[in-house]
Amino acid sequence: MVIFVDMDEVIADAYTAHLEIYNQEFNAQVKIEDCFGKEFWQTVPEIHQESIKGHTRRDGFFAGLKVMPDSQEVLEELSKKHEVYIASAAMEFPQSLREKSDWLDAHFPFIPWQNRILCGNKHILKGDVLIDDRSKNLDFFDGRSIMFTSPHNTNVTSFERADTWKDIAEKLL
Amino acid sequence: MVIFVDMDEVIADAYTAHLEIYNQEFNAQVKIEDCFGKEFWQTVPEIHQESIKGHTRRDGFFAGLKVMPDSQEVLEELSKKHEVYIASAAMEFPQSLREKSDWLDAHFPFIPWQNRILCGNKHILKGDVLIDDRSKNLDFFDGRSIMFTSPHNTNVTSFERADTWKDIAEKLL
Repeated sequence: MVIFVDMDEVIADAYTAHLEIYNQEFNAQVKIEDCFGKEFWQTVPEIHQESIKGHTRRDGFFAGLKVMPDSQEVLEELSKKHEVYIASAAMEFPQSLREKSDWLDAHFPFIPWQNRILCGNKHILKGDVLIDDRSKNLDFFDGRSIMFTSPHNTNVTSFERADTWKDIAEKLL
Repeated sequence: MVIFVDMDEVIADAYTAHLEIYNQEFNAQVKIEDCFGKEFWQTVPEIHQESIKGHTRRDGFFAGLKVMPDSQEVLEELSKKHEVYIASAAMEFPQSLREKSDWLDAHFPFIPWQNRILCGNKHILKGDVLIDDRSKNLDFFDGRSIMFTSPHNTNVTSFERADTWKDIAEKLL
């Protein structure tokens, strides 16, 4: 089985990073619960939104992301039984490409370079399972689309869903 | 129609770059005709081969590649009629990722970031046409595989072939 796994919000915790940077730089106290059903930038005053949209163009943003709980253990097991690819829509952010490659080396060394994909849209992926947090990616996939729960997608009901990596283990291991 | 186009040896002239670097650094006179049917490193004395294999890990190697003749004009026309993606197996060389993105910005600005793919193997591409110089990529493709002629593949007979971008224009425009 060929399984594609997204990076941000699935194995890398970008949402918390946005929140921590914003709270620190604007001396704010936004909590994850405040964000359900919205993009992070939509949860803050309009005057601060451009600053947040710039986070993903900062050097070091992607390098510093925390690993999502249990994703390493479950992906390592999945990789023993299936062809697991990491597929990240990263081409919009050229400074992120090297950071994402290095981040995978550091945290997911059992996913070899042959199985890593940095792309623009994901319409071109051919495989059996796609685990992603975005409807725009899952919509176009021919195989089994699994939405990984993230604050911004809590109101989406059109996909099979996994809330945690333990859920993924139950579904696919 | 979804068309995937490889970078090195198809739109970017890596082979000539290898040859020019080698001739300069080893005061040699290797010509393209000496290379037919071989990887470039196989055309030089064994004692020099490791040096050549290191070219693709040097900063600036990919940034400096020349554009293949007529590839810009033909790809721009193809892009008006079809979904054209650039797909490069670049993940082996992390320092190349940003260089390749910047090189596409400079020479193929009409291919937007949404249509750029940096990957490991190309088994996962879903589309109609793949233009590539490597059997290992063309072999696995479900659609129409077109081998773009490069010195190293002159002896391969198992694929439809294009020798130049004018050939591609005749086939696909």
